[in-house]
Amino acid sequence: MAGMLGRPGSWGGLVLRVGQTFFAAACIGVMGSSLGFASYTAFCYLIASMGLQMLWSFALACLDGYAITTNKDLTSPILVSLFVVGDWVTAILSFAAASSSAGVVILFQKDVFFCRRYTQLPCGKYELATAFAFLSWALSATSALIMFWLLAAF
Amino acid sequence: MAGMLGRPGSWGGLVLRVGQTFFAAACIGVMGSSLGFASYTAFCYLIASMGLQMLWSFALACLDGYAITTNKDLTSPILVSLFVVGDWVTAILSFAAASSSAGVVILFQKDVFFCRRYTQLPCGKYELATAFAFLSWALSATSALIMFWLLAAF
Repeated sequence: MAGMLGRPGSWGGLVLRVGQTFFAAACIGVMGSSLGFASYTAFCYLIASMGLQMLWSFALACLDGYAITTNKDLTSPILVSLFVVGDWVTAILSFAAASSSAGVVILFQKDVFFCRRYTQLPCGKYELATAFAFLSWALSATSALIMFWLLAAF
Repeated sequence: MAGMLGRPGSWGGLVLRVGQTFFAAACIGVMGSSLGFASYTAFCYLIASMGLQMLWSFALACLDGYAITTNKDLTSPILVSLFVVGDWVTAILSFAAASSSAGVVILFQKDVFFCRRYTQLPCGKYELATAFAFLSWALSATSALIMFWLLAAF
């Protein structure tokens, strides 16, 4: 277990957290700068969910950095249980947000042709933000699986 | 491990599988009988994903029933690994489908007011089908977590 890649308090874990924070921030930046996103519930929910993901991942990144510099072990059952709950909640919320945004973007592009009809809609930006959300979720899901695996192995 | 609720080849596992099959079938029935669902990619994907969920869960329900009647043990590492992969794939696809459908239904109702404007759209049925998909996913996610837990505990 001590050698598990991506466990809390390791370089792998830190890289995962930094990646999650970066992609969540990129998603918020791109979506927040898109015209008219606030008219669509799915996009507002995406920003809220990515905000939560960013805060959680940033806090965990700081904790990982602290553990690495001070050589602390973060793989105690209580800490891992806490990480499992937080990771699973944020990963599920992120995935729901990314999927619903993807559903709406595909609807706009292929089903009701809003992107062609209303050319002021920044569909490219909506797409890019959704892609960033999926990337953030993929890293978050990796962390969540690692935590669950650690917890089950105690 | 032998006493774990919902493990393959137990009554708990069978109940979970029957529930997944039932809700997936209900979702397909409601969505398939809704007018105009085929015009929306998210709803077509919901039917495809729930079809896969139904087939997988039905096959596993049959296997559970067989194991219960013949008193066979299905918790070997190879079988559980197979169940883990299948359960996780179907659960993730189901959740993505349910979330994107929910995103589109909320868009129709609250953002672009299609439900009010185009009264022939059966928004109530779209909603009901999405709710069934979430129920099927919840049971499927429960199975997936149990399988993962069993695999980690080997």
